[in-house]
Amino acid sequence: MPSIPQSEDPVAEPQAAETQVAARPQKARRGRPGYDYATVLRIAIDVFNRRGYDGTSMDDLAKELGLSKSAIYHHVHGKEELLRLALSEGLDALTSVLEEEERRTDDASALERLRHVVVRSAEVLSAHQPSVTLLLRVRGNSEVELDAMRRRREIDHRMARLVSLAVDDGSVRSDIDPTMISRLLFGMVNSLTEWYRPDRGYDSKVVAEAVASLAFDGLRA
Amino acid sequence: MPSIPQSEDPVAEPQAAETQVAARPQKARRGRPGYDYATVLRIAIDVFNRRGYDGTSMDDLAKELGLSKSAIYHHVHGKEELLRLALSEGLDALTSVLEEEERRTDDASALERLRHVVVRSAEVLSAHQPSVTLLLRVRGNSEVELDAMRRRREIDHRMARLVSLAVDDGSVRSDIDPTMISRLLFGMVNSLTEWYRPDRGYDSKVVAEAVASLAFDGLRA
Repeated sequence: MPSIPQSEDPVAEPQAAETQVAARPQKARRGRPGYDYATVLRIAIDVFNRRGYDGTSMDDLAKELGLSKSAIYHHVHGKEELLRLALSEGLDALTSVLEEEERRTDDASALERLRHVVVRSAEVLSAHQPSVTLLLRVRGNSEVELDAMRRRREIDHRMARLVSLAVDDGSVRSDIDPTMISRLLFGMVNSLTEWYRPDRGYDSKVVAEAVASLAFDGLRA
Repeated sequence: MPSIPQSEDPVAEPQAAETQVAARPQKARRGRPGYDYATVLRIAIDVFNRRGYDGTSMDDLAKELGLSKSAIYHHVHGKEELLRLALSEGLDALTSVLEEEERRTDDASALERLRHVVVRSAEVLSAHQPSVTLLLRVRGNSEVELDAMRRRREIDHRMARLVSLAVDDGSVRSDIDPTMISRLLFGMVNSLTEWYRPDRGYDSKVVAEAVASLAFDGLRA
């Protein structure tokens, strides 16, 4: 496997690939870090976000990675598989938040559950910002994109259901349509993809608490 | 000027072109409405949003419009001018909201001023949803995009200043960084581009009030 220096990437933070393909062991050359599978994916997501998926060819990817196309095919079958893996990263993490919530057996109120999901979702968006940014931009131009949009809609529905439960038990205001509350609430959460960067000095836990506090209590002093 | 039937467009609502080029009079053929300048722009924005600007050629545009390329050049100099006009529509409208605010001479508090700007911005996003959607997606791939990003940043700074003034006079909470409040607040407003559609039965004034009410008072009952 070719091994070349990693580029400086101001956006993405290194993170474990939450995909079905395990990261391959790194091979050192001249003492510099090499490209493992997770790094190829991370850089591909960054390129897709900068140039747009449709505007990125395998040639572009090879150039940005400093790899030959055949070296990329050593990691994945092609551009579409990279997109699928890239989108799955954020989708899998958000799905985990909901599953975590559904496994809870304590007697937390609907409001506490909703707040917890908002905090955890905001943390996921901070940790997987590049993947979720890509996810929020897909337009359904291929089966992979359509499938990601279906998974996103399913997640949105489950989030909206948590809002409805909290409206039903009287803990969330009922003067605004629960669907609209859900859209605005997660619109605020999703805005993290627009401005949150791990290198800007914001701690992701502090940001997630700020999101929930602002959403639940409002910005009035 | 060629005159062909307009396509059904579920997203964009017809609106006056807020650009320096006046709409040309429509010319009827077989009793169906023709393409005026504003309609060419509206459909171009829709195509850019669906296919991505970089993924749209003048040939694609001509096909979608059902016009020859030379008929499009009758309206604009080229694809980049269409992009500039498309982005200006939302930027001009948002700038107007701030100018409107700055012209106010009453003794409204910083909080009232901020709330008013939030409501008016939400109304602008509803009215110019396709243009603002395009604006939020530009990546700076050309001078036109970079210029739009500069204008957007300038607007963001002026909005953030209104938040800071309200924090300074004690009406907005000071336990969260004002910059973060501003980003989350306008992140919520901007989410309208993701889900607001004039044909979904939400009145834009009701939505704008809901945004402000949720942002200022929070979602707790």
